[in-house]
Amino acid sequence: MRPVAIIGIGKTAFGAFPDRDLRSLAVEAVGHALTDANLPAASVEAFYLGNFAGPSFVGQNHLAPYIGTAAGFTGIPCTRFEDACASSGSAFFHAWQSVAAGVYDIVVAAGVEKMTSQSTPRVTEILAGAGDMSGEGRAGATFPALFAMIARRHMHQYGTTREHLAAVAVKNHSNGAKNPLAHMRKVVTLDQALAGKPIAEPLTVYDCSLISDGAAAVVIVPAYRAPRYTSRSVRVCSVAQTSDYVALDSKKDITCFPAVQSAGQKAYQAAAVSPKEIQLAELHDCFTIAEIVASEDLGFVPKGQGGPWAAAGCSALNGSLPINTSGGLKSKGHPVGATGVGQICDVVMQLRGDAGERQVARHQVGLAQNLGGSGATCVVTILKAA
Amino acid sequence: MRPVAIIGIGKTAFGAFPDRDLRSLAVEAVGHALTDANLPAASVEAFYLGNFAGPSFVGQNHLAPYIGTAAGFTGIPCTRFEDACASSGSAFFHAWQSVAAGVYDIVVAAGVEKMTSQSTPRVTEILAGAGDMSGEGRAGATFPALFAMIARRHMHQYGTTREHLAAVAVKNHSNGAKNPLAHMRKVVTLDQALAGKPIAEPLTVYDCSLISDGAAAVVIVPAYRAPRYTSRSVRVCSVAQTSDYVALDSKKDITCFPAVQSAGQKAYQAAAVSPKEIQLAELHDCFTIAEIVASEDLGFVPKGQGGPWAAAGCSALNGSLPINTSGGLKSKGHPVGATGVGQICDVVMQLRGDAGERQVARHQVGLAQNLGGSGATCVVTILKAA
Repeated sequence: MRPVAIIGIGKTAFGAFPDRDLRSLAVEAVGHALTDANLPAASVEAFYLGNFAGPSFVGQNHLAPYIGTAAGFTGIPCTRFEDACASSGSAFFHAWQSVAAGVYDIVVAAGVEKMTSQSTPRVTEILAGAGDMSGEGRAGATFPALFAMIARRHMHQYGTTREHLAAVAVKNHSNGAKNPLAHMRKVVTLDQALAGKPIAEPLTVYDCSLISDGAAAVVIVPAYRAPRYTSRSVRVCSVAQTSDYVALDSKKDITCFPAVQSAGQKAYQAAAVSPKEIQLAELHDCFTIAEIVASEDLGFVPKGQGGPWAAAGCSALNGSLPINTSGGLKSKGHPVGATGVGQICDVVMQLRGDAGERQVARHQVGLAQNLGGSGATCVVTILKAA
Repeated sequence: MRPVAIIGIGKTAFGAFPDRDLRSLAVEAVGHALTDANLPAASVEAFYLGNFAGPSFVGQNHLAPYIGTAAGFTGIPCTRFEDACASSGSAFFHAWQSVAAGVYDIVVAAGVEKMTSQSTPRVTEILAGAGDMSGEGRAGATFPALFAMIARRHMHQYGTTREHLAAVAVKNHSNGAKNPLAHMRKVVTLDQALAGKPIAEPLTVYDCSLISDGAAAVVIVPAYRAPRYTSRSVRVCSVAQTSDYVALDSKKDITCFPAVQSAGQKAYQAAAVSPKEIQLAELHDCFTIAEIVASEDLGFVPKGQGGPWAAAGCSALNGSLPINTSGGLKSKGHPVGATGVGQICDVVMQLRGDAGERQVARHQVGLAQNLGGSGATCVVTILKAA
């Protein structure tokens, strides 16, 4: 496998955009990424699109050529990748693999979702399809309910508290308030987070990520070619995708995700990087408890210590390992299919030193972790400043 | 890219199976393929699943790990590929590419769809999502309507007749009647086909493929490794995936599909094989006119001659180039996401000499062509007996 670089990134704002359709969001993000890479659409050899549930949210399927042709790609492989909330993480994994293995020299990986045209109950129902509809889904377990069980068990097993969960929300809202592309740019206090409307005990509305529209895209080339196009490329050290059971009740221990652990281990090993060397990370905080569990599964803190660690400010912008400097899914928003590639764009911005008010001091090595369902898919990417 | 071989194939029967769920169909096909390859599930390094619309048909999304874990795959990349009716063709393309490029040594590509739990009007509506819902779909154009327009134009431009279309149906039903795994094992006469219930003029019910449940799977390894597992491997000479506009009205000429032409050209070139050397083919006959157009776009006959060629028996079992010896989508059935890998299984059966009553005399080089939508995606695969 040869070294690979990201030479262009593009994101739309994340938010509720009643006057925008899914395709225009994706085309905008791809256009930004190509402009950033100084490349015409005609030079792209393959298009990797992550989308979770376009057919259910907006009634449009066959999205890869539908978006690809509008973005200027014809006659090339245009493929949609679906792995629940890790759909564009998976698209990025396959895009990276094809370039690393020498199949292509220029590819685009993107992700998109348009969720806000459906009511919140219908969105919740569509999202439940990422779980096991023949079991937990039939029993009425929505994702807030599944992650509430994970939180409850984590509290029972490790002493995690509501304050720990709320601390994650406070931090991510604080970061997101500084991100011009975030969905909810609103600072939240610990008291506000604790007093949030209950969604599924112990999770309040402040523990849950947002229902958003948005898109993100990156341009990937072999590292040796990157200087032809830009002086601002970022090196992709490793990408790992793994899987596990979809149903939460199939898991031995719901306070950790084997897919996150194994994807992390594979990514660290392939990049020859240890968790201690990671300087910033975008973690998949679909719920606050998910960020806590991920910080443990990825080896940033010992098992059970994710809550106190966050509450102590270690993952804040000025902490020892800033997490979700973008605001995370909590504040930046979570247009499901766009999230994986969006996280990668956010890490690239930090590594380039382009994160403005949110810029962290140490920004040489970053990690992005994209989770699908309640841990059935995970994609971990390690990036380094060139 | 290194040579690649298929060492195992597995198919369920295609049909209407009210007592089977989507997952059990896919797991059965994967199990058959692994048994055929003499391999345990634990040796598989990545799982590529084609599925068009599981969320819409059966309310289950995140299908790759959902099926993968049930098939015995854990801790490996499990990814769903969607490209409308070419979903599992695309899964196969990416699976082949990963082995050919040296990323993996043992992978499984599969496809599945469970359609018959929905009413025919609802199925038609779901299938319409493979077209442009913001244009042709909003105007009420279902796929039978789109392909009826293609047929009308082909008739106008080249003199194709209803009898030519019906001849394709008669041939495919004749073949399918000999296929134990076919959905509709029923011989149809030309008169019957011509007198079929009109669906969208000039297409009758006999011009339209079936709404089916079913799954198919293959095991892929580097060619040098194949003899370790089986003496019955088949060589994958080339696989090409290309794309084009989703909306029919975006195409310059609706009597041909540029994506089919370019995928064919790329596949022929990579395999160093000419259309004349193809000895049997599975073509994507979602409608009879689609088989006629594909036989032209792939260079088997000059443009416009596909109808007379089929009517003259050239594509019959004992013709110069037998097409759809399985019965095709018309008689074998068209569980959308399973079709691409299913076609490949059918070609492999012929190349192995295992096609029983349907076995053709010359069976060294075969081709499979999988179409998505009204030509927006095409995957062409060329296989040779080992």
